Formats: sequence, structure tokens, C-alpha cells
Amino acid sequence: MTVSHLPELSAHETESLHDLYRHLHRNPELSMQEHATQERIEAELDALGIEHFRCGGTGVVGILENGEGPVVAFRADTDGLPIEERSGREYASEARGTLPDGREVPVMHGCGHDTHVVALLGALRALVYDTERWGGTLVAIFQPGEETAAGARAMVEDGLWDRAPRPEVVLGQHVSPARAGTVALAAGVATAIADSLRVTVRGRQTHGSQPQDGKDPIVAAASMVTSLQTIVSRELAPQEAAVVTVGTFHAGIKENIIPEEAEFTVNTRALSQETRDRLIGSIHRILRGEAMVAGIEEPVIEKIYDFPLNVNDERAGERVLAGLRSALGEEEVSVGPPMMGSEDFGWLGASIEVPSVFWWFGGFDSPEPGGPVNHSPRFAPDPETTLRAGTTAALASLWQWIGHEG
Amino acid sequence: MTVSHLPELSAHETESLHDLYRHLHRNPELSMQEHATQERIEAELDALGIEHFRCGGTGVVGILENGEGPVVAFRADTDGLPIEERSGREYASEARGTLPDGREVPVMHGCGHDTHVVALLGALRALVYDTERWGGTLVAIFQPGEETAAGARAMVEDGLWDRAPRPEVVLGQHVSPARAGTVALAAGVATAIADSLRVTVRGRQTHGSQPQDGKDPIVAAASMVTSLQTIVSRELAPQEAAVVTVGTFHAGIKENIIPEEAEFTVNTRALSQETRDRLIGSIHRILRGEAMVAGIEEPVIEKIYDFPLNVNDERAGERVLAGLRSALGEEEVSVGPPMMGSEDFGWLGASIEVPSVFWWFGGFDSPEPGGPVNHSPRFAPDPETTLRAGTTAALASLWQWIGHEG
Amino acid sequence: MTVSHLPELSAHETESLHDLYRHLHRNPELSMQEHATQERIEAELDALGIEHFRCGGTGVVGILENGEGPVVAFRADTDGLPIEERSGREYASEARGTLPDGREVPVMHGCGHDTHVVALLGALRALVYDTERWGGTLVAIFQPGEETAAGARAMVEDGLWDRAPRPEVVLGQHVSPARAGTVALAAGVATAIADSLRVTVRGRQTHGSQPQDGKDPIVAAASMVTSLQTIVSRELAPQEAAVVTVGTFHAGIKENIIPEEAEFTVNTRALSQETRDRLIGSIHRILRGEAMVAGIEEPVIEKIYDFPLNVNDERAGERVLAGLRSALGEEEVSVGPPMMGSEDFGWLGASIEVPSVFWWFGGFDSPEPGGPVNHSPRFAPDPETTLRAGTTAALASLWQWIGHEG
Amino acid sequence: MTVSHLPELSAHETESLHDLYRHLHRNPELSMQEHATQERIEAELDALGIEHFRCGGTGVVGILENGEGPVVAFRADTDGLPIEERSGREYASEARGTLPDGREVPVMHGCGHDTHVVALLGALRALVYDTERWGGTLVAIFQPGEETAAGARAMVEDGLWDRAPRPEVVLGQHVSPARAGTVALAAGVATAIADSLRVTVRGRQTHGSQPQDGKDPIVAAASMVTSLQTIVSRELAPQEAAVVTVGTFHAGIKENIIPEEAEFTVNTRALSQETRDRLIGSIHRILRGEAMVAGIEEPVIEKIYDFPLNVNDERAGERVLAGLRSALGEEEVSVGPPMMGSEDFGWLGASIEVPSVFWWFGGFDSPEPGGPVNHSPRFAPDPETTLRAGTTAALASLWQWIGHEG
Repeated sequence: MTVSHLPELSAHETESLHDLYRHLHRNPELSMQEHATQERIEAELDALGIEHFRCGGTGVVGILENGEGPVVAFRADTDGLPIEERSGREYASEARGTLPDGREVPVMHGCGHDTHVVALLGALRALVYDTERWGGTLVAIFQPGEETAAGARAMVEDGLWDRAPRPEVVLGQHVSPARAGTVALAAGVATAIADSLRVTVRGRQTHGSQPQDGKDPIVAAASMVTSLQTIVSRELAPQEAAVVTVGTFHAGIKENIIPEEAEFTVNTRALSQETRDRLIGSIHRILRGEAMVAGIEEPVIEKIYDFPLNVNDERAGERVLAGLRSALGEEEVSVGPPMMGSEDFGWLGASIEVPSVFWWFGGFDSPEPGGPVNHSPRFAPDPETTLRAGTTAALASLWQWIGHEG
Repeated sequence: MTVSHLPELSAHETESLHDLYRHLHRNPELSMQEHATQERIEAELDALGIEHFRCGGTGVVGILENGEGPVVAFRADTDGLPIEERSGREYASEARGTLPDGREVPVMHGCGHDTHVVALLGALRALVYDTERWGGTLVAIFQPGEETAAGARAMVEDGLWDRAPRPEVVLGQHVSPARAGTVALAAGVATAIADSLRVTVRGRQTHGSQPQDGKDPIVAAASMVTSLQTIVSRELAPQEAAVVTVGTFHAGIKENIIPEEAEFTVNTRALSQETRDRLIGSIHRILRGEAMVAGIEEPVIEKIYDFPLNVNDERAGERVLAGLRSALGEEEVSVGPPMMGSEDFGWLGASIEVPSVFWWFGGFDSPEPGGPVNHSPRFAPDPETTLRAGTTAALASLWQWIGHEG
Repeated sequence: MTVSHLPELSAHETESLHDLYRHLHRNPELSMQEHATQERIEAELDALGIEHFRCGGTGVVGILENGEGPVVAFRADTDGLPIEERSGREYASEARGTLPDGREVPVMHGCGHDTHVVALLGALRALVYDTERWGGTLVAIFQPGEETAAGARAMVEDGLWDRAPRPEVVLGQHVSPARAGTVALAAGVATAIADSLRVTVRGRQTHGSQPQDGKDPIVAAASMVTSLQTIVSRELAPQEAAVVTVGTFHAGIKENIIPEEAEFTVNTRALSQETRDRLIGSIHRILRGEAMVAGIEEPVIEKIYDFPLNVNDERAGERVLAGLRSALGEEEVSVGPPMMGSEDFGWLGASIEVPSVFWWFGGFDSPEPGGPVNHSPRFAPDPETTLRAGTTAALASLWQWIGHEG
Repeated sequence: MTVSHLPELSAHETESLHDLYRHLHRNPELSMQEHATQERIEAELDALGIEHFRCGGTGVVGILENGEGPVVAFRADTDGLPIEERSGREYASEARGTLPDGREVPVMHGCGHDTHVVALLGALRALVYDTERWGGTLVAIFQPGEETAAGARAMVEDGLWDRAPRPEVVLGQHVSPARAGTVALAAGVATAIADSLRVTVRGRQTHGSQPQDGKDPIVAAASMVTSLQTIVSRELAPQEAAVVTVGTFHAGIKENIIPEEAEFTVNTRALSQETRDRLIGSIHRILRGEAMVAGIEEPVIEKIYDFPLNVNDERAGERVLAGLRSALGEEEVSVGPPMMGSEDFGWLGASIEVPSVFWWFGGFDSPEPGGPVNHSPRFAPDPETTLRAGTTAALASLWQWIGHEG
């Protein structure tokens, strides 16, 4: 099977997909609030004559049947992030949204999910226009709320697999800071386990000039942040890839009041359940110890969410690799180590015990060391090459299951 | 001159002042936004037939002339704080306000300025009802914005001393966590120099799982908070009273994004200009050094406000002491060391080179070690004894200038 | 009583005392090992015909009786410090000694005890040569081991007050970095309570490249040192003078081995028992908390020694002040706040419930801010003026008890 | 070629090697001071009739020629470590030695180099007794000073390769905490680059009760240790294996003196030159920044030594693997990732551009998680199984070059 067998898009179609991309990029929405995105996807599916239903709140599932053949699911996630875009692109986002806690924030497609949506819609277009050479059923999953680990679970709980046909494999892809045209696929573990915790440090409020009458939660929490560094630097083997990040820290209203509380959030990554458990255990131990140092009660540690370990099925992964190599060129496809990024993609297949495969496609014409990565306010893929490669990768992988031989 | 000479309030008047206190306590307003408080004060002055004018935005100046005699100014500050009251009092505040930066916050009379207003109005009532035994002119200054060091300057710049007669002395008092009925007055330095700084730490935003692609401003700022502790613990003489407090720390929106910036505020106290300069210099040096440690650019350090050193005039202080001892009892009046609290009260007299005296009156029937202090969410003076003592102290000090001899 | 009444030393005697000073300065001995110093003092007392006995190991007590009159004790301490002298003086010490733990160290009179010995011997000479004008008994206590808080207790336990007559008052003085010719005496608390603690942090040794297999005691102990700073910066009132110093930190033999243990010592100062108890309590709490942070067992905290609070008797202090003012000039004698330095001098009087008085005499002709202080390797008093002033202060204070009127 | 072809040792020979092992274990010597070890090795070689010469000070090179065939070098390192043995073995070391800086320390074979010496001597014995079935020349390198990275360089500079025949390959092995009988060999990078640095932090000495008059080098150095943790936790990619260890920290002589200096040493590990350069650069930046924080001059950072990256030649590595698998069993030989340990072994081959191969052999019958690792005071291999496996591995690898075909 070679590249020449893949369906292709016309120049007109390609231009239209670029317009769609710019529209989505300009109008990102926060997790589980992707209402306009949902409607736009529905309109696109309608235009292609693809059946669809809403699922998991702001998710959409399209079902494209084309005669006999395997059932394959492909997932694209749809949400943006609370980041203020600084990409300088003409179509940069100026959108704002409201977080669940009521804060109004800027919103940006800072993780490139807009490219995922467009690549999957591009593949659907190509398949719809070229139904002769393939057969089977494609379940196109437009999943909301990936960034908060909420969407995949919401879709499964909302009856995704009761309402859509059960697939042989679930496929998914994600844009990365690598060169556009390249693809990387991990053998085995694809993405890390992630846990997010909220830590509330309770001190005792007092006047800023009388520290002796209170308990300073900012000094205590700052020391916690510092001590958390030692988990990675001292407790884990150097070869063990793991991350402990404090992503937010909020305390106090006025500079001359020592506040009652400080709150921070921790995000961890690990490539095995054992390491993950060690990270969480060490965090609890360190925070309890720091509370004793500060002479305050133990901080309250609440789970915000967690992402599962996302493992590529070995056999299905080989099959995807073959398709990608054929379509993009041998040297453009690498088999790499796990990414520290996390994904709730894994829930989709795991919930029905179906193998899944997940890979990364490059998003930049000339990536540079130190350049913007996912979640950076300057993360802006080069659309032309990125969307072409993303669409091709989607088609090439699907083709391994639904394409007709030679 | 003895206590018996001071004017007194009837039981009815006293009850009415308690009502006023509960009203003010329930309706605190943020600094320089004391509109309702201003109107209420004006209504009270109107009811007493005292002339008044607005000054410095939300301030009020009342002028009570009563024949021949010295001109004396007495100041009460009027603003509340962005604190959520947890006093459990029936009349606890549920008010909210909006900070200059747009944040909506709870508001509380957490520093007891409502007792200052009531004590001064109580003294005015007593003087208005008993004009036979005193002579002179009382300038009653209801000053806004003490907590932000904005009010005294605003009133002076708005022509306070062009519009009110020039006094011989400026008096002021503040409620404290001590036993109600007691008063403390410092010989010399009354309150500390205070500086408030805003520190913006600029890192580089990245995905929480890829710290190597960014610069973590939270880890950097946390380390800054920790290192700032060494100024007081190592750089200053043990006998040198000084404070470096970080009152706020804000960074990040999402736990899996390492943010671009962290912002914190620092509040310092010192009892001499030399120590103050050393504190500020050390803060700058430490923050620059920490930025180098973190591999980031130097943080931006902006001044929010500063409070002057507030020095009691020696001779006028002796005179006030005599009055307080006579009215409250020898053993209830102490001459103490400086307080680390700060006050913009000093600007009022200093701006026209007139001596000033400032003292503390207790606010609690049974103060306990570890009990709530000013700026605590549980700071709630016991009104009956506190207001009586505050009114008596105001009258007793004024009487030293305007009361007729025995 | 005026200066003219004090006995005086001839130029020859003065020169001889300078020789003695240079000899002692060149030959310092560590605490409780002052053997050569002891012998030299005995030789000096013999030369003056003053009876003496050994006491407390390396201590000497001289008894100078001269007819009727009060018994007064005067104490000079005799030990040096494990510091390498860098004073640049011609007579700088190159001595070495052996600490109780076996380490060989340089030794220096880094706290100026040599000036104390010479001043007391100078006063004895003057009194011996001029017995007409005074009467009474002088108990001259040459005390070893002040720096380790061992000497005063050792002398008392060795029967000091069974063997010497019981005095009315115990006097003592110490050289300071102030201007020679000046004296400072504290009303009330003279010197601080001091405690010294040894902390042993037990980790688990491992190869430096495999931190995950051990527990790093250096990272743990470093964090302890940092957290100890918050006691003074956050837990105590700004006006409360207190110090927490980590004076030694030792861990590890080789850079590529994470060692089993780290050991550090802590020295604290406080001006009241209550504050002292709070310091010690906080140290224990912080070190326990830090051990939990590090995942190691609680550190072992051992007391090395403690110094008592040293309080000047009010009435005897006034009497000494009168003498010093008369001899040195009104403006050269100040009544100051407590020093943070500590002294075991207090045990001498306290053990027999006799009042005591302790003061500081300046040691430098041109002291400068930032210049060397006691325990600095560059601490080298200017002998001529310092010894004259020290001898005069000793005589002037003694004279208040034993001198004949006018 | 199968196991049966390897020469074997008699029970008597084996017992004699165990005696030798216990002797060496009981008598460890510090790096570059292995005089007794050198003499014992010479005696062993003499007993076998193997020519030898001294090289690099305390090193020994044995040359065993046996007719035609390739020249192969095999290296065993000979030095012990400054660790106090706590293995509880009957033959545990009680030896002491003197470090270059004059400190007397306990010495222990804490890295198992004694097993290396015995395994190589065991292989030599077997080869000497069985000369029929092999041909070639064996260069047996007994290298001193591995722990200080001094020995390999010293031997090369002392003309090792001018005096011994040039080999086709240089082989070497190291005991590990794994199960005895197993061997691990890395494809590519075998051991890490290591750098050791000495950091001298210069403060200003003062009395412990007067921190304001000095600059506390212990607080500064403690903060440096803490900040160094962020290099691994924040600056490097999670997948990048690297270590920054502070192995020693020494400051101060007396708890009530804030000392002039603190000194600590840093040991780093990296698996690429780029990461190594980043580590060193970050250390310099952090220490400079911390000096600014502390208000002191930049610390002096001196290099103690460095270890090169040690890379296994691909082709020679495959050949060694084949021999080990044949001799020890397929399942007992693993191809693993790089070790974070470091070795100066690499200099031997690199200096003459000859390929080299290095592997690890297990040393414990029942290794447990958390059990003692190299450089632990409890590191004591089980001699019987370990020495058998080590000798076999040495023979099996050599046999690949010098053994006659089946």
C-alpha cells in the first residue's frame, strides 16, 4: 500500500480547511464549554452528510458508514486553554472565558487542538469524496474537555459506546513542537500518568507588622514549593522521568495583612503507576512536614483530576507505523520514548478494552531550540504544512484498516 | 484638673452611639471609597449643628468653634479592609467591595476604624452639649484611606489647612488588642515607617510537564519569599525592630501550565530611616540575586505606597499623658515603646510643622494571649467599654487644650 | 569622691603591664586548658605578695586583705577561642590547641579576655602599692572556661565560696568594640541567655550518583538551616531581641558519596526565659518537621551548654555607675540596653545570692562601623588606651566599696 | 563456543582466591596510596610467573604472553574509599588512611574494587594453568585511583602504552548491587560523565550573637544547596538522566562564632557532553546568584576532577555479550541503559583510540530493594558467588578474542 492510494483534497478544499482553522483558532473555548465549537463541527458534518449525535455535553460523534469493513474510531479533542495568546498571528485569539471558579480569563488554542479538529474533518472530507476505494465504518469522536481530564470520561459515561458501533481500534493524534511533516509514535507508554492536586495551607491571619500573632501561610507555602523540588532531584532515580510542577499559587489580598490561607496546585507526571504512587506519597509527606515546620495544621490536599497512563497497543501500533511511513516517508516517522504530556484519550479504548494508538505530528516549519511549546502563549503551528501532515496522518492510519488493498 | 470636669454623655446618647457603631461596623468601605461613611458622618455633624466640608475625596472636616481658645485638631480614620469577617458578632459585616485592580472582595472593619469615628463623634456630642466649660476651636478630621496611606496626603493636597484653621496640635488615637480602659502612648517614635512594594517576577510560560522549555516563576518567587526572611534574621541587629512581610502572592491560572509571571507584595516596617533604607536595599539585592539563581531577568519592583515615621512631640505628649491619667486612672495609662503599626496620621501635622500626638486605646474586656489582633478576621472590639474609653480619651486629651481650669 | 583619689600606676608599671598583655595575647589557651595562663597569673600574684589558690581546674583566686572593710569580688575570665588570628599585630597569636573532640585548631584571644586579666592585675598592683587609702578584702577571681560556660560553674562546684570570704558584691567587666575610654552598663538585664545545641541529622549513605537509594542528610540539614531563620523573622515580635545562629555544619568526606550523617550546632540568645523557651521549642518543632520533609528519622538534639540570664543588681549598679562616671567622665559612661552576648559571670553571685554588676569597656581608639567585633579574627584592642581604661574602671568600681572617703 | 571450553579453577584455587579476597577487603587503601595492594598483586603475579611492571605510581601491569594471537587488555581497579565499614562481616575493614588534605579517615572497599582484583587474578590463574586452548597476549591492568579519576590518566601519562603491547580491545567490569551471576552491559553509553567541584563560600566572621556585624556563610551555603536542587527538577527535561549531589559541607569550629567560610563539594553526572555543560553552567549561575542574595563575594569554584563519558564499542560489545551469554546463560545477561556511575576506565582505550567494553556483574545472593549499594557503609558482596561470576565473566569475555575455536 503506498501514498498514492490515499484520498486527496483539492486546492479549494484545502483553502476551505485553512479558513476553518483560522476560525477555530480565533474562537477557542474553555474545557466543557465548547458550545460554539460543537455547533461548528455539527455544521461541518451536516455539510458532508455525516450523521452525528451530541455526547458528553459539548462533544460530537460523527458516524460515517461505507459498506462492509472494520469499524475504526478516531478522536480529535476540541478545547482551548486559559492562556492569553501572544503568537502575533493575524488570527490570534482575543477570546475570554469564565473558569468554574468564576474567574474571567483569556482563552487560547494553546495546545493546538484546533489542528486536531481540522485534520479529522479534512480526513472525513477526503473519505466522503472518495468512497470507492474504502469500506467500513468510521466513528469520528470530537471530544471536549481534554485539558481537564473530563471529556473522555464524560463521553463514555454519556453512553458513547452504547450509541456508536464498537470499533476494532481507537486512534488519536496530537500536534507537537516538532517539524511539520514528521510524526513520532511511542512503543508502549505513549503519555504519562498525571495527577492534579489542590493544596490549601491554613495559617492564622494577622497584621503584617505583627507576624508573632499569626501564622504566615505564604512563607509556609513558599517553603513547600521549594521542598517539593527534592522529590525529582533526590528521591527518584535519575533515569526515572517524572515531573512535579506547582502551576498556581494564590494567597492574600493586601500587602500589609498576613493572610489566613494560601492555595496552590500541583501537577505531577510519571511513566508508571509505581512512580506515580511514590510522587503522591512524597508530596503528602513533604507537605505534612512543612506544616509542622511552620507550626500550622496539616494542609488540605484535594484531587482535582487525574489522567491515566496511555499505552499504545503493540500490534495496532505497528500497523499505524506502517501506514505513516508509507504516507510520510520512512525518515519522517520516528519511534520514540514516552512523552511527559498526558491525555485522557486512553479512557476511550480502555473503557471497552479495545486497543488504541496515539501519536504526535509536528507543527512547525522551522522549529528552534527554546521555541514555543504546547501551552506557551506563543504556540502557533504553521497551518499549511501542519494541517496537510495532520490530515495525511489521519488518513494514512485509518487506511490501514478501511482502505482496499492495492 | 480631674475626671469630674470632663463632659459626659447620657445613657440615651451612649445607646445611640452604640447603634451608630453597629451600623458602621456592618457597612465598612474600602479605602478612598468611603462614600456611605462620609454621608453618615456628615449627617451626624449636621445633627450636632457642626459646620463641615468634604476634603480629599471621601474625607470630612468638621469645625466646632466655641469662643476664645486654642485651635486643636483631632483625627479619626474611616476606612475598612479587604478581609472576610469571622467575628461571629451579630452585626458582623457581609459587605463586599471592589479593589482598584478590579477584584471583588469582602470588606470588614478589621482595624477598628469604626471605633475611631464613633469615639470622635461621641466627644463632639459631649462638647456640643456642654459648651460652658470649654473654649476654642476643634477641627474634627474624618480621614479616608488610612490603610493605603492615601488619605492624609489626599486631604492635605486638597487644601485641608487652607480651609480649616491652623491648629496648635494634631491628636489621634487607635484601638488596639489591649484591655479596654487602658491607653498606651509612646515617648518619641509612635509608629513605624512602612513601605509596600509590588514585585513582578517574569519567567517563561510552558507546559507543566516540560519545565525545561520554560522558566518557572513560582519556584523563583517562592525562593525569594524564603530568602527575604534572612534580612531580619541575619542582617539586622537583634535589638533592631523591623518586619519584612510578604502579604500577597499570585501566580498561574491552571495547574498544568507553568505561568509566565508571579506577583507578590512586600510590606516592611522600621523604626528609623536608616533601618528602612537597609531593608529596602536588601530586598532589592536579594530579589536580583534570586533572579540570577533562577536564570530569569531582574524582577520589576514597584512602590505601592509608604508611611512616614510617626513621632510624638515630647511636650504635647506629656500634656496628653496628664489628661489621660487624670481621666482613666494612673495605672491604666502606660508609656510604651513604638508600635510596629504604621499610620499616615503623621502627615497631617508634619505638613504644617505642627506637633502631633498619637496613642493606642484598648478594645477588649478580656484580651488573651494569641487572641485576635488588628487585621485579623476575628478582630471585634467589645463596644461598650471600648467606645466609652475611646470617647473619654478623646475628651480628656482635647480638654488639656480647650477645657477651662478646674 | 573624685578621680584624683584612685590609686595610680607608674609609667614603669604601665609598661610592664603592656608586656604582660602582649605575652598573654601571643599565648592564648582554649577553654578549661588555661594552664600556662594560670601559672603566669600565679606568678604575678606571687610578685605582689597576694595569697592565692587554684580553683575549678585552671582557675586562680587571689585574696588581698587590707584591714577592716567590705569584702568585694572582681572577676576576670582567662580563656581564648578556636579562631585563627588575622589582626596583623606584631604580637598576633600563632598558637594552636586541641578541642575536646580531638580537632587541632588555631587559638586566639578573639574575645579580649587577655585585657580582662591585665586590667584586674593592674588594679591589684595599684591597690597593693597604695594600701593607706583603702580597707577591706578583695577576692580576685581569674576564671577559666567562660566561652564554654564551664568555668564559673566549675569554680563554684570546686568550693570557691567555701574557700574565699563571702563578698557583698561581685563585679566584672568585658572589653567591647566601642571607643576606648567609654563604658556601658545595662540597667537590669546585662547579657542574654544563651543555649548551644548539637544536631545530628541521620540520613542513609549511598553513592553520589544514586540519590534514590539513600536519604540525603546534607540537603535535609541545609533546609533546616534555612527554616530556622523563620523563628526570628516570623515567630517573635519584632521588638523581641533574639538570635538563632548555626555556627558549625559538618557532613561528608567525599564529594561522590552522599553521607550517612550531617551535624550542625545552634546557638541561641534571648533576653527572657519565656523567649528562650520559645526559641528552643520552635527549634525542636522545625527540626522534627524538616526530618519528616526529608523522610528521615528525627534528628538527635543535644545540649552542649547554656548561659544564664545575667542581671545587674539595681542598687549596686547605681553605685558602680557613680564610680565610673567620676573616674572616666560623665559623658564617657552610658546606661544602655542589654547586650546579646552571654556570660557565665552571673553564676558567681547567683550561687550565693549576692548582687553582681557587669559592664563593658571600649577597646578601640577609632572604632568604625563594620569594624571587627568580638570573635572576629581581626579583633585586636588598642592596648594602651584600653588597658588604662580597663584598669581605671576596675579600680573606680572597687573604690566605691573599699575606698576611704574623700 | 560453549561454557565447557572455559578454563576452570580447582576447589583449592577457589579457596585461595577467597582468602585473597578477605585479605584485600580487610586492608583497603585510599586512592593513589595503594602501596600494600600493589605489593600483594605483584606477589600474586610472581607466583604465576607473569611479568609485570609498576605504572602510574601504585598501579601494576602484568603481561601474559602465550604464543600467537590477539593482544587484549583487561583492567581491574584497586582503590578503597574513605567510608567507615558497617557491613558486620567478620573480615570488615578497620583500616584508616590520610586524605590529601591531611584528614585521617576510616577506609573501606565500599565500591567492591577488591572483587575486581580477585576476579582478574582468578582469570589469570585459570589461563596460566590451561595454556593449550588459547593463544595471544593478555595485558592485565591493575589500576589505582579510580575513585578520584586519577589512576587511568596517571598510567597513560606514565607510558602504559609505550611499555605494554597495544591491544585490540580494552575490557573492564564492575561489581553492582544486582544478583550474583547476572551481568548487565549497556549498548552505547556505559557510564556517565562526572565532574567534582569544590565551592568555597566566603562570608565575614563575627560573634554568633551579632549576625549584623558579619556575613553568615553557612546560611548562604545552605541556600546554595537547596537551590542546586532546581537544576534537575526544573532545568532539565524529565527524560534527561542527570544528578547534582553535594557530598560534603564543612564550616565553622564553634557554635557561637559565625565563621568566615563554608566549603562544600558538588558531584555531577550526565549522559552527554551537552547536558554536562548545562549542569556546570547552571551551578555557576546559581552560586553567583546566591552570593548576591547573601551579599557576599562570588564563591570560588574549583574543579577537583572529572570523569569522561564511557562508551561501549558496538561491535566489541556484541562480542563480549556473546561470550557472557554462553558462559552465564542467556537469561542472566541483560542489555541495559547507561549507569549513572562514572569510570575513568574510558581513558585507557580512548588514549590510543582502541575500542573498549565495560559491564556490571552482580554481587549479592539475595539483593533487596533498598539494600546497600556501592559507596554504602554496608556494601559487602557475597564472595563465593560473586567471585565465581566475576572470574567467569572475565574469562568468557577474554575467550572471545584469545580462545581457540571449539
